[in-house]
Amino acid sequence: MFKTISSPQNPFIKQLVLLKEKSRQRKKTSQFLIEGKRELSLAVKGDYSIETLLFFPDLFSESEANALSQYDIEIIEISKEVFQKLAHRDTTEGVIAVVDSKKHELEDLNLQSKNPLILVAEAPEKPGNIGALLRTADAANVDAVIIANPKSDLYNPNIIRSSVGCVFTTEIAMASSEDTITFLKKYNFNIFSAILQESEPYHIQDYTLPSAIVVGTEATGLTDAWREAATKNISIPMQGVIDSMNVSVAAGILIFEAKRQRNFK
Amino acid sequence: MFKTISSPQNPFIKQLVLLKEKSRQRKKTSQFLIEGKRELSLAVKGDYSIETLLFFPDLFSESEANALSQYDIEIIEISKEVFQKLAHRDTTEGVIAVVDSKKHELEDLNLQSKNPLILVAEAPEKPGNIGALLRTADAANVDAVIIANPKSDLYNPNIIRSSVGCVFTTEIAMASSEDTITFLKKYNFNIFSAILQESEPYHIQDYTLPSAIVVGTEATGLTDAWREAATKNISIPMQGVIDSMNVSVAAGILIFEAKRQRNFK
Repeated sequence: MFKTISSPQNPFIKQLVLLKEKSRQRKKTSQFLIEGKRELSLAVKGDYSIETLLFFPDLFSESEANALSQYDIEIIEISKEVFQKLAHRDTTEGVIAVVDSKKHELEDLNLQSKNPLILVAEAPEKPGNIGALLRTADAANVDAVIIANPKSDLYNPNIIRSSVGCVFTTEIAMASSEDTITFLKKYNFNIFSAILQESEPYHIQDYTLPSAIVVGTEATGLTDAWREAATKNISIPMQGVIDSMNVSVAAGILIFEAKRQRNFK
Repeated sequence: MFKTISSPQNPFIKQLVLLKEKSRQRKKTSQFLIEGKRELSLAVKGDYSIETLLFFPDLFSESEANALSQYDIEIIEISKEVFQKLAHRDTTEGVIAVVDSKKHELEDLNLQSKNPLILVAEAPEKPGNIGALLRTADAANVDAVIIANPKSDLYNPNIIRSSVGCVFTTEIAMASSEDTITFLKKYNFNIFSAILQESEPYHIQDYTLPSAIVVGTEATGLTDAWREAATKNISIPMQGVIDSMNVSVAAGILIFEAKRQRNFK
């Protein structure tokens, strides 16, 4: 038998609603919510620590919950009303977890390859774009993603959702652009800054040494610091009528050219 | 002096609201709405025929409207209430146009290159994905985009918006997958169907002959017809934890590999 919470007015539930909705609350408590089995299993795979698991028995069976009770997790049964109050998505699987955040510091990055490939995204704004960038980084199995000058916290429910959960399995650091540049130079990365002006075509560069591919926002591109720090400023030849490309598409093209040169190893 | 409509209850305005909201109405009348100066200028560039232009004088000046009166366009001044009823976006420029649709038939495609590169997207569902595909196609200056087994009409306001207007300047056809395959074979295209199973890595293929790159939906991929019709089934090596990629990112990677092999000519 599990502890049960049936009132949406329960103070603990109210705290969790704040955790879902407010970046400030996530920062204050160093916790966030995960919803759905797939996301939860990816978080476990990514060594996230689950504090509390809440399940709605019509959708998530007691035996499933029992299977998790071997771990040091508080398990709470919740009513439909509580579940609906906490759930972010329309379709879901009756399970929500309170999980501890990670710190995402540069020096904690676990770069296993001797010849790493890193994606840096400066100040990405839309959660959907961050999710798409993380999916691309996952598919390419890059060694790490660095979010420079982050505009939002990583545990925004829309980032978790649009990343299809790979936000939990990717090596991610968040830092200022300045600190990121210092880090990349310290470890002898070639820095390829995606910039339209005074740049060379991306496809004639050599990405086979330790490389960081750096993309900015669609609206304003990269800050000057990245232009100055670049080993090469690179661009994708734009031959169309409109002069813009979705940032996750651009990142995909650049990263997979690097992967191609590395024979996908 | 222009004709003025100030009541949102005006029957013509009610018709235009239907045009904005209902695909059925767009099909019935072979017309659709365009909002914003940039989109309008791209539609003119793309040889679309403007029937009626409605402007809200606080945002779009009478002199701007006068400049258009040399063309055979009915120009109507509208009130704030009418403008708000017709406008789809939050930020806009006080101008909305009623424009004639094009037919988008395969045999009308104007393939200027002797060695064309075409993007085929089968049954893309989300307007945002279609917009991103069109932006990528524009950047690569592909010869045409074919939407096979279309699920929505091309003039959905969210497609226009997410394509940043390049829906008007790209050569686009819409047809069944069957007819598209017949068309591509008739004109001796190599067909590269992006399929996970029984496929070869995309980056060891030769895209320098007339080529069609074919992508399906994220959920279900391509139908069997494309597997059978393919010159080669190709895939992007997926080396991550989650086994999926945004369709517009995947299309970008494939198209730009073809462009790279063609030296961006």
